[in-house]
Amino acid sequence: MGAAVPADWPSMTDANPCHKHVMMAGRVYRTVSDRCWDVEKRVADMEEMGLRLQAISPMPELLSYWMDPAAADDLLRYINDQMAEMVAHAGGRLVALGALPLQDIDRAIAELRRLKHELGFAGIEIGSNVNGKPIGSPDFGGLFAEVEKLDMAVFVHALRPAGMDRLIGPAQLQQVLAYPTDIGLAAASVITSNLLLRRPGLRIAFSHGGGTLASLLPRLQEGYQVFPVLQESIQEAPVAQARRLYYDALVYDDATLLHLIAKFGATQIMLGTDYPFAFHDHTPVARAASAIANEATRNLVIRDNARRFLGTGERVSP
Amino acid sequence: MGAAVPADWPSMTDANPCHKHVMMAGRVYRTVSDRCWDVEKRVADMEEMGLRLQAISPMPELLSYWMDPAAADDLLRYINDQMAEMVAHAGGRLVALGALPLQDIDRAIAELRRLKHELGFAGIEIGSNVNGKPIGSPDFGGLFAEVEKLDMAVFVHALRPAGMDRLIGPAQLQQVLAYPTDIGLAAASVITSNLLLRRPGLRIAFSHGGGTLASLLPRLQEGYQVFPVLQESIQEAPVAQARRLYYDALVYDDATLLHLIAKFGATQIMLGTDYPFAFHDHTPVARAASAIANEATRNLVIRDNARRFLGTGERVSP
Repeated sequence: MGAAVPADWPSMTDANPCHKHVMMAGRVYRTVSDRCWDVEKRVADMEEMGLRLQAISPMPELLSYWMDPAAADDLLRYINDQMAEMVAHAGGRLVALGALPLQDIDRAIAELRRLKHELGFAGIEIGSNVNGKPIGSPDFGGLFAEVEKLDMAVFVHALRPAGMDRLIGPAQLQQVLAYPTDIGLAAASVITSNLLLRRPGLRIAFSHGGGTLASLLPRLQEGYQVFPVLQESIQEAPVAQARRLYYDALVYDDATLLHLIAKFGATQIMLGTDYPFAFHDHTPVARAASAIANEATRNLVIRDNARRFLGTGERVSP
Repeated sequence: MGAAVPADWPSMTDANPCHKHVMMAGRVYRTVSDRCWDVEKRVADMEEMGLRLQAISPMPELLSYWMDPAAADDLLRYINDQMAEMVAHAGGRLVALGALPLQDIDRAIAELRRLKHELGFAGIEIGSNVNGKPIGSPDFGGLFAEVEKLDMAVFVHALRPAGMDRLIGPAQLQQVLAYPTDIGLAAASVITSNLLLRRPGLRIAFSHGGGTLASLLPRLQEGYQVFPVLQESIQEAPVAQARRLYYDALVYDDATLLHLIAKFGATQIMLGTDYPFAFHDHTPVARAASAIANEATRNLVIRDNARRFLGTGERVSP
């Protein structure tokens, strides 16, 4: 950037060994391990976790939708370039989901094209909402048209969630309770806005197993059947639209995972790890393997669905 | 009331035959059927639905937490008296869950005592939040102490929910998506605030099958295990605390109902109908009977859990 660095520009300072503080607006936002950027350590961990391929994406708070668009654009291009370097040094073990300045759709589309044509990214990571607007909002119609055209994957992660004033307890409840709440509402907004009917080629995946969507879906389906105005505005049954979306398997409970597979479809769930953060699943493959008795379903969830979602089918040996 | 009627005082005007408009602030809030107040028709419908006993409670928007406390107190006393009359004319087929002006805890406790000692109510209905404060807030500690002492049931219904700005589509999505969202967060607030550990005699039931709680719970449990600060503030495992709460079975999907029974416990789920509104289940007994293969569980869900929750065990013949 030519101009002065904005006050809300994130930076890093040293913390304990192998860790750095992520500073935002002069305060420690989070302390992160060097697994965030050290490709060698990351790939070594992947071996232990039984992973052949991992998709990397920015820590959601870095998506910076609340920042001045030009500054955010600069920041996200820098982050995307860093991810491209990680991918280049990982010997085919990493693919990247890049960040876009969604507060400015024109800039976002320009960066999306750069991710595809210059950096060779598999897709993008977006927040569950952009400054309060859920991703099913018509505001993002132009973006999703371009994403579909470029055949890129979309991973939706919770960010600055709804329901914060409903939490009683420590700040960690934001990621524990409000994140899955926001993800569930984001997924519902994609269904009620018929996005996948307008853009059937889109591949959109939701973090946290779709969050609360599994609880919302039967009631949404019933509402669709009961209220003529919903029957009219929702153009395909919600339970059918839900099976057009992808979800990660990061729900920490076998019965819940099996419930998701039954409701959303065996072809729509894939491993998620939240690596290398506090919530990360250290044994994602082993956990799914022990939870899923059916071998065909197991192979889909552990391997094939992620390949199809990421569009890496041909790039990974079986 | 001696004073002039406040502008936000609800009223009813004639609609089509057997229906009236509920007017709020001069506009039609909702058009409701005479099943709301006609005991004879209600009991006839109960016969058809296979119900021996039904708990009645005010339409949630009437809870009026946003109204001047004195005016709300007057209104809710009137509503409670009307419900008492319905119960008196129903030949033992109805019990009442009354309304309290929770914007003023002293008034609320006074009315709670009247419900118990003068009107003989089984319990109360409360909103999932009171002007944005979830029911697990310490503000309601005094109320719940008195509820426990008086041995009354608490039914929590969604009201003016969080997440409204995350909805894309018709206004009906409020009750379809935001209601279960707010109920899930309300139930989570009861868990994270350890309310049932402080008040183990409380019987609290949540509408909409606990809303999104089933989706939130495994992640809350994992967070409790991962974050020391949550381990410290939450005094019993969330999955155990969830089994101290009651939930209705109104989830419109057999697999989801069985998932709730497995997660929350066969002793904690009971029929809910939403009668006589658009979402109401016309065949609650038949639906539960066909969904639940285990006879002991079926009897609990259809009959015994509601009796235990309502404290009417001795008043209903088997």
